[in-house]
Amino acid sequence: MKKVYLDNAATTFPKAPGVAEAMSDYILNVGSNVGRGSYESSYSAGQIVYETRELLCEMFNFNDPLNAVFTSNITQSLNMITRGYLKPGDHVIISSMEHNAVVRPLVSLQKIGVEFDKVMCDSEGKLNPSDIEPLIKPNTKMLIMTHASNVCGTILPLEEVGLICKKHNIYFVVDSAQTAGVIPIDFEKFNLSALTFTGHKGLLGPQGIGGFLIDMDFANEVSSIYEGGTGSLSESETQPDYMPDKFESGTLNIPGIYGLNASLKYVNSYGLSAIEEKEKELSSLFINDVLSINSAKIAGIKGTDGRTSTVSINFENYDNSEIAFLLDKEYGIMTRVGLHCAPSAHKTLGTFPSGTVRFSFGHFNTIDEVKYTIDSINNVLKLL
Amino acid sequence: MKKVYLDNAATTFPKAPGVAEAMSDYILNVGSNVGRGSYESSYSAGQIVYETRELLCEMFNFNDPLNAVFTSNITQSLNMITRGYLKPGDHVIISSMEHNAVVRPLVSLQKIGVEFDKVMCDSEGKLNPSDIEPLIKPNTKMLIMTHASNVCGTILPLEEVGLICKKHNIYFVVDSAQTAGVIPIDFEKFNLSALTFTGHKGLLGPQGIGGFLIDMDFANEVSSIYEGGTGSLSESETQPDYMPDKFESGTLNIPGIYGLNASLKYVNSYGLSAIEEKEKELSSLFINDVLSINSAKIAGIKGTDGRTSTVSINFENYDNSEIAFLLDKEYGIMTRVGLHCAPSAHKTLGTFPSGTVRFSFGHFNTIDEVKYTIDSINNVLKLL
Repeated sequence: MKKVYLDNAATTFPKAPGVAEAMSDYILNVGSNVGRGSYESSYSAGQIVYETRELLCEMFNFNDPLNAVFTSNITQSLNMITRGYLKPGDHVIISSMEHNAVVRPLVSLQKIGVEFDKVMCDSEGKLNPSDIEPLIKPNTKMLIMTHASNVCGTILPLEEVGLICKKHNIYFVVDSAQTAGVIPIDFEKFNLSALTFTGHKGLLGPQGIGGFLIDMDFANEVSSIYEGGTGSLSESETQPDYMPDKFESGTLNIPGIYGLNASLKYVNSYGLSAIEEKEKELSSLFINDVLSINSAKIAGIKGTDGRTSTVSINFENYDNSEIAFLLDKEYGIMTRVGLHCAPSAHKTLGTFPSGTVRFSFGHFNTIDEVKYTIDSINNVLKLL
Repeated sequence: MKKVYLDNAATTFPKAPGVAEAMSDYILNVGSNVGRGSYESSYSAGQIVYETRELLCEMFNFNDPLNAVFTSNITQSLNMITRGYLKPGDHVIISSMEHNAVVRPLVSLQKIGVEFDKVMCDSEGKLNPSDIEPLIKPNTKMLIMTHASNVCGTILPLEEVGLICKKHNIYFVVDSAQTAGVIPIDFEKFNLSALTFTGHKGLLGPQGIGGFLIDMDFANEVSSIYEGGTGSLSESETQPDYMPDKFESGTLNIPGIYGLNASLKYVNSYGLSAIEEKEKELSSLFINDVLSINSAKIAGIKGTDGRTSTVSINFENYDNSEIAFLLDKEYGIMTRVGLHCAPSAHKTLGTFPSGTVRFSFGHFNTIDEVKYTIDSINNVLKLL
């Protein structure tokens, strides 16, 4: 059976050409640790790791490769920042479109006296920046926001929000899980304090590697929740306070970094704007066709602008799970049904608790696949 | 130039046959996330992940695959347990041979009122179990101990220590970085509460994947310091309290798990006792020859028993760094010089702050390589 992968918002597939080869090359031919040995292959692995930090800086207009920290995924990045920084009595603002990777740590931190408020987005997931200032309190220390919803693809206005954070001297932390590698992110222009990212979505790299870029002033305020051997200051039983060692303990996921290195080079060579344009073409075609299907209600923005290529649909009067199941079973179309680890976003969109069927297009999908998907949806609806 | 890799205590090289292929196969042919999609390839990745949990249980005589948690490395595992469990007023006992992955988090936790004491080992790194009981206090909650020193290879008596922990109702956490995959570890027999492990050393898998096995009673007492999307209980903004989701947030390092799956199968098929025997043969040959070199003083146990195949040497009246440098430059022998992220261990052994040259033999080293290393050491000493 034909297979159409439309779960790119969970993880992209396929990965960029060269990712598997770079990882294999490291495992088979390099293999050594970084910053731990004084021999040649340890240095060569170290060079690739450093080059990858530089590639990330280049992609996100950030100027300090040593402040590009590797973690295992964006969830770890977000936890390291929230738990490493927030103290009892601190107040945080988030949007109502956040993923549980942002919300769940904050819910836990409430137990130690951290407070948070949600800026309510509208029923299309759009955030009005003027809704932020009324929520700012004297103890507001941080604003965390996704760049785009993982449920419906609505893009949030980072640049405007960054200006508000700057004006009020609030640290601004962005979750780029749904946009990095597809939509331009400018650390400087957006006035970011930290940009968290994951390697396995739009950056087209492997699972298991993520990280964050962090402004030095902010980094100095964040403790590491994760300490251990760093291959540096080995005489000391205290974690080094310099970057990136402060936040990178234990052996890095070096095969993952080799894979990410290859995928970042692919994204650069294809060009971010060409990637964005191609995905927009796919999702626009899909959206325009879906709008003509009576029972298919798009959650979030009904049009093709102001969004990523992630499109969530609530099939009115149908069981969404059954539709996703039949699309997979009968037509080989892989989607994701449910709440997408973002109950607050679904509440905002009016799709809680029933959820949606999420069709998330990626760089390697084709126009033919979009057409096939539309036909298949129509066929499935006829079956039911 | 001939290349001899003797830094297996940092990371083993080469990896088990099939590791690179398994990772490539996942990246190229499977690619999907686990527990997030309802389509077929998501289930097949899920099966490999679950099978890997089972393989770990089998290797360490543990009975609950769902309590085998994946992390990115053993440092993360240790931080998750210490920071997730310890509270102000709690007391912890560790050995004086611990790696900074154990010590640094505890030094940090002192700031919130956690206390710890070190059981002093002797100058060979040996621990006398009867030295533990005098350190136990009413608030002693946990004992953390490495199975073997990463500096000198001395094996600590886990079984005896486990009995003491059981008697006094203290949680017993083991760092198996230097022994998993080489020396048998029996979760039940050793009365462990948690066994932390890393995939990229004796288990011959890739960097970036580690974890811990944890007894259910203990797991219930440990909070998760990483929370976020788990693909489960998506309607809730609170982390699930069931295993392994409680401790596994965000996308797992699935290529890493595929690699570990392959390496665990290799270790099983070769046989743990055959692996142990082969490494012992190599290190015994090395030790017996080193003992005849006047200026080469072995740190820790001078004999061949009670130890792993990691051998640290202090070259009296020489600069250890220079010897390591020349061994690499002139003879292609890769070692690691310094303090090995374990200052307390070096203090115990009397090699602080000068450190040692560490020769750590692995599963794929050969007798010829050992002989070549001995000849090369003699040649380097003549040069200086």
